[in-house]
Amino acid sequence: MKIGFIGTGVMGTGMILNLIKNNYDVTVYNRTKAHAATVIDAGAKWADSPRDLAQVVDVVITIVGFPQDVEETYYGDNGLFKSAKAGQTLIEMTTSKPSLEAKIAQTADAKGINTLDAPVSGGDVGAKNGTLTIMVGGEQAVFDQMKPILSAMGSNVNLFGGHGKGQHTKMANQIMIAGTMTGLSEMLAYGKAAGLDLSALVKTVSQGSGDNWSLDNYGPRILAGDFKPGFAAKHFLKDLRIALQESEKMAIPLPATEKAKELYEKMVDQMGLGNDGTQGLVKLYRDMKTD
Amino acid sequence: MKIGFIGTGVMGTGMILNLIKNNYDVTVYNRTKAHAATVIDAGAKWADSPRDLAQVVDVVITIVGFPQDVEETYYGDNGLFKSAKAGQTLIEMTTSKPSLEAKIAQTADAKGINTLDAPVSGGDVGAKNGTLTIMVGGEQAVFDQMKPILSAMGSNVNLFGGHGKGQHTKMANQIMIAGTMTGLSEMLAYGKAAGLDLSALVKTVSQGSGDNWSLDNYGPRILAGDFKPGFAAKHFLKDLRIALQESEKMAIPLPATEKAKELYEKMVDQMGLGNDGTQGLVKLYRDMKTD
Repeated sequence: MKIGFIGTGVMGTGMILNLIKNNYDVTVYNRTKAHAATVIDAGAKWADSPRDLAQVVDVVITIVGFPQDVEETYYGDNGLFKSAKAGQTLIEMTTSKPSLEAKIAQTADAKGINTLDAPVSGGDVGAKNGTLTIMVGGEQAVFDQMKPILSAMGSNVNLFGGHGKGQHTKMANQIMIAGTMTGLSEMLAYGKAAGLDLSALVKTVSQGSGDNWSLDNYGPRILAGDFKPGFAAKHFLKDLRIALQESEKMAIPLPATEKAKELYEKMVDQMGLGNDGTQGLVKLYRDMKTD
Repeated sequence: MKIGFIGTGVMGTGMILNLIKNNYDVTVYNRTKAHAATVIDAGAKWADSPRDLAQVVDVVITIVGFPQDVEETYYGDNGLFKSAKAGQTLIEMTTSKPSLEAKIAQTADAKGINTLDAPVSGGDVGAKNGTLTIMVGGEQAVFDQMKPILSAMGSNVNLFGGHGKGQHTKMANQIMIAGTMTGLSEMLAYGKAAGLDLSALVKTVSQGSGDNWSLDNYGPRILAGDFKPGFAAKHFLKDLRIALQESEKMAIPLPATEKAKELYEKMVDQMGLGNDGTQGLVKLYRDMKTD
C-alpha cells in the first residue's frame, strides 16, 4: 500500500521514519521542501503538491500546523480534493477543529473517499519511538483497514466514535494538560517566592497525590532553565482555543480552561514566547512578580 | 519517649495506630471522645484536655481541622501552652497557616519549647499504611531528634527549612492538585458533552502526557458515582484559601489557583457539598450544563 504523507515537521518526520522502517512506500510533501531532507534521505519520495501526491498513493496522512493549514491542504487550489478519488483514504492527524474534520468527512463522502480524524499525543519522543497515542474518529471498517498503518506510528491506537470524535478526545486530553501546566507553574511560582528548595519540592510533590506527567517531565527542565519545546506553546494555545470554541458550542462553560487559555495568550501573544515549550508558562509568574 | 496526640479523625487514627505499632506510649485527646474509641481500644491512654495531655508526655502531635481549631488547641483556656514546659516538643501536623505556625514557634521559643510544623499528604490510605509524605519546617536538630517518630507515620519525611516551610511546601502541593482537579473535572465535563466513552477517555489520557494521580485515582471513582471523601472538599477549600492569602502576602498572583478556589467555593458554599471528596467538583459542571 502506497502512503502519501503531508507535513514533515518534528512530529511528521518521526512518524514517516517509522512508516519507512515498517516497509511502507512513502511519498511526502511539505510547504518548505528543505524540511523534508531527513525523510528523503531515508528513502521517501517527493511530490510537488498535495494535489500531485494524491495522484500517486492509496492513503494520504496529513499532520500540519493550524486549522487554516489543514483547510489549504485539503481545499486549496493544489489541495488533496483536487485529485483525490473514490477508494482512497485520507487520515487527518493534525490537532484541529472537530467541525473542520466533519466538513472534510462530508466532502470526502460525496466523492466516495474514506476519512479518519486521528490526532496524536506523546510529542516528538513518541513520534520518534513509534509510541504515540492515536485518538481516532471515523467508521469502524475504515479504522480496521488503517490500523496496521497507524500502529506503525503509535502504540495506543483506539477508535472513539464517528467523525470528529478523535479530535474531541484530543481536546479533552488538552483540557487535562491545561490543569497540570497551570498547577505546575503556580506551584513553582509559589515555592520560589516562599524560599523553598524547588528540586526538593518537585521530588516531594511527585511522590504524593500531586504527581503528574508535566511535573515529572517539565519540572526538572524548568529548574534547569530549559524551555525548548517538547510541544510549542503557540500550538497548545491553538488547541485550547479550539477546545473552548467547541465547549461553547456545547454550552459547557470551562472556567479553569478559559483561565489557562488567558495565561497562554499572555505568554504567546503579549510576551512573544510562542516558540517556547508549554513549560515556558512559568515565565509569566516571574514577570508578574516584578511588576 | 511518651507521645501525646491530639486529633483522632480519619488521619489521626491511622497515624496513632502506627505509633502504637512502633511501641510508642501514646496518650490522646479529641474534642469528641467517642471518635477516640478505636485508638483507645488499641492501647492509647486518654487525657481530658490538651492542657492535661501536655503534663504527662514528652512530645505532643496535633492534627485537627481548621486554623481556628489549631489556635484553640494551642492557645485556648485548656490549651497546650497552659502547661507545656521547656524541653518538650510540639509537632503541628494540621495543614494550617504558615503565619500561625510562626506564631506558635515564637510562643514556644520564649518558653524553651521546641516546635516543628509537619503537614502531611497521602490521605487516609497513607495514614493507615504509614506511608504519608511529611513536609517539615523547623530546626535541623529538632527534626533529627523527631525523625524516628515521624518515620513511624510516613515513608517520605523531609525538612524544607525553618518554621513555616513545611506548611509552605504543603501549600505548593495543594496548588499543584488544584490544577489536576480542575483539569480532570473539565476534561470529563467536555468528554461527556461531546458524547465520548468516558472510561476509554480516562484510560487513553492516563497513558499519555495528561497522566496524573487525580486522574488515575478519582477518574474511575467519578465514573462509578463515588464521591466519598478521600479528602473532603471543605478541607481542600480551606487549604486553597490559605495558599492564596499567603501568595497575596508575597505579591505573587496565582490566577489559575484563584479560579480553582472560586469553583470549590461554589461547590462547598453554594451547593453545600463540602463533605464530598474533592472529586465532587465535577458536579458543578453537570449543574452548569443543565442551567
